Amino acid sequence: MKSPVEFASACPVSLKEYPTVTMAHGGGGKLMHDLLEKIFFAAFDANSTPNRHDSAILELPVNRIAFTTDSYVVRPIFFPGGDIGSLAVHGTVNDLAMSGARPAWLSAAFILHEGLPMETLWRVVCSMREAARRCGVRIVTGDTKVVDATTGEGLYINTSGIGVVEHSLQIGAASVQSGDAVLVNGDVGRHGMAVMSVREGLSFQGSIQSDSGPLFNAVEALLSNQVEVHCLRDLTRGGLASALNEIAEAAGHGIAIEEEAIPVRGDVHAACEMLGLDPLQVACEGRFVAFVPERDAARALEILRSQEAEANAKVIGRVDRREPPWVVMKNSLGSLRALDTPVGELLPRIC
Amino acid sequence: MKSPVEFASACPVSLKEYPTVTMAHGGGGKLMHDLLEKIFFAAFDANSTPNRHDSAILELPVNRIAFTTDSYVVRPIFFPGGDIGSLAVHGTVNDLAMSGARPAWLSAAFILHEGLPMETLWRVVCSMREAARRCGVRIVTGDTKVVDATTGEGLYINTSGIGVVEHSLQIGAASVQSGDAVLVNGDVGRHGMAVMSVREGLSFQGSIQSDSGPLFNAVEALLSNQVEVHCLRDLTRGGLASALNEIAEAAGHGIAIEEEAIPVRGDVHAACEMLGLDPLQVACEGRFVAFVPERDAARALEILRSQEAEANAKVIGRVDRREPPWVVMKNSLGSLRALDTPVGELLPRIC
Repeated sequence: MKSPVEFASACPVSLKEYPTVTMAHGGGGKLMHDLLEKIFFAAFDANSTPNRHDSAILELPVNRIAFTTDSYVVRPIFFPGGDIGSLAVHGTVNDLAMSGARPAWLSAAFILHEGLPMETLWRVVCSMREAARRCGVRIVTGDTKVVDATTGEGLYINTSGIGVVEHSLQIGAASVQSGDAVLVNGDVGRHGMAVMSVREGLSFQGSIQSDSGPLFNAVEALLSNQVEVHCLRDLTRGGLASALNEIAEAAGHGIAIEEEAIPVRGDVHAACEMLGLDPLQVACEGRFVAFVPERDAARALEILRSQEAEANAKVIGRVDRREPPWVVMKNSLGSLRALDTPVGELLPRIC
Repeated sequence: MKSPVEFASACPVSLKEYPTVTMAHGGGGKLMHDLLEKIFFAAFDANSTPNRHDSAILELPVNRIAFTTDSYVVRPIFFPGGDIGSLAVHGTVNDLAMSGARPAWLSAAFILHEGLPMETLWRVVCSMREAARRCGVRIVTGDTKVVDATTGEGLYINTSGIGVVEHSLQIGAASVQSGDAVLVNGDVGRHGMAVMSVREGLSFQGSIQSDSGPLFNAVEALLSNQVEVHCLRDLTRGGLASALNEIAEAAGHGIAIEEEAIPVRGDVHAACEMLGLDPLQVACEGRFVAFVPERDAARALEILRSQEAEANAKVIGRVDRREPPWVVMKNSLGSLRALDTPVGELLPRIC
């Protein structure tokens, strides 16, 4: 994690004059104009929005698109392995990827809290720019509001995204079939525990890095290798448990998974134990499950491993039964239990 | 403005069990699932998102689209003539309309404050549904976060929008030409003063209704009647003054306007005077300026008047000079002054 000092010299707004965001930066006048020019247009490629008008005009290479939105309220805004800016890019890009859509354009809307240090804002914006560059997406339109929050927590970011759909598959829970293999692209629970470690000041702070990262490359590799992808879902709020239960219920199929097959790192296990959490219910930001026909499972696994070898992708189960409890898990002793969706709030403000 | 009581019976979440939003409603578990099912999917046409997946898949009738985003933080959330929900639909639909794009799809992302009364949320969501219906747009994807705000102010909404571009004009500041007529579609300053009146508990409370409303019908009427529209801009934050200055500067042209031609209602004038505000710098949410060739001005005026007769559309000036001060205004005595962009915060949390 870079220290604020490294960024101070680069922040294009005079920190002497405006060390923090003020209400006037959201008022529609000259100060807001300056903020847009110096921070947002500077970072997000002003050339792509020549007239800086209310909307971006986009020429589409296809006539089937995916459209998604997500707000990011993670606290703290910097955590091991990422920050609210990179998360806001990865999260929305990943929602598009889960439809098999190639992420193309993002909007970025900021709700800034009065008093937010200007260099913090610049740091977050630079992180977004870098994440967008790595993901091959362009941030083409945006908005800024300033609110007089007394909490001083910083900022919320909404990103909406448009992706182009180049495949002809119907990727979604409705396409899940009995016999499908369930794969996960890597070890689960790291993002949530990385954020919690900083928030709670726990001793493992820093050793667990968020898994936040873009997923389209992995999805594209599956699709371009003719894996017949039935369903994809990223493991965000509620983790693997929520994702599997949602898919099973929507598909009207049961899912049987093997506890031993699910990759969870030792330090994540230990941290979860300390906090009384189940790693299967903890949010990830760079993990997804893929449902594919059994005949494609081995090939899909190989492809996922080639994307991120150290993440330890696995086949974790099969689609098989047709009634609730929707998701059952077999442990190492062979006994079965229902893997439930968490009822309430496990980890607030995790994404 | 309807009272909360009328809505209480209709709120689909049990108000006995959950009178307010809790952190658990944002946790990714069963309670959040219930909130989505009963409030958001119920209001926003679940049929349009059959698998309730991360993104909506959209089939486009054209391959040129407009894309925009806006967050809404208006306080109070209910005001004479509208609320944060209808504003969030109109505002984003209008940003699309200002590109001459036909609004088609919206996303809706909610940041709810813990403790928000559940029936207030339902009221806002119903207002969005109704506004979307009137505007002919579909809300096709969304997101919900809950934050532990201590302010209890309620909620923030982000809407992003996609519109289809059916014309071949280049609508924007770069197309503005010397000699263009500048039209406004109605009296200015009402939205800002309607919000302020409630916030400040002023004596004119209720008599000034927000002008919040959708603008695409007016734009479509101009385009379908072959008015050669050069530039359109809605008069939101910073009002008419900010809009004209932004366009003039971006176009590299001067604009001369006639103070007497600008429609401002008497009660808005009086309220502005009381608060020391200039109505030309106050936000509207249903007003825009159109730049058209002089030869089309009379026809454009007639079209705008036919859309909303009581709004009193006017030709307010001409594009003429080429250097700063960009916007000059002639008063009734014939004297000229620069019409400046407001420097800082005039009316915080107005949209």
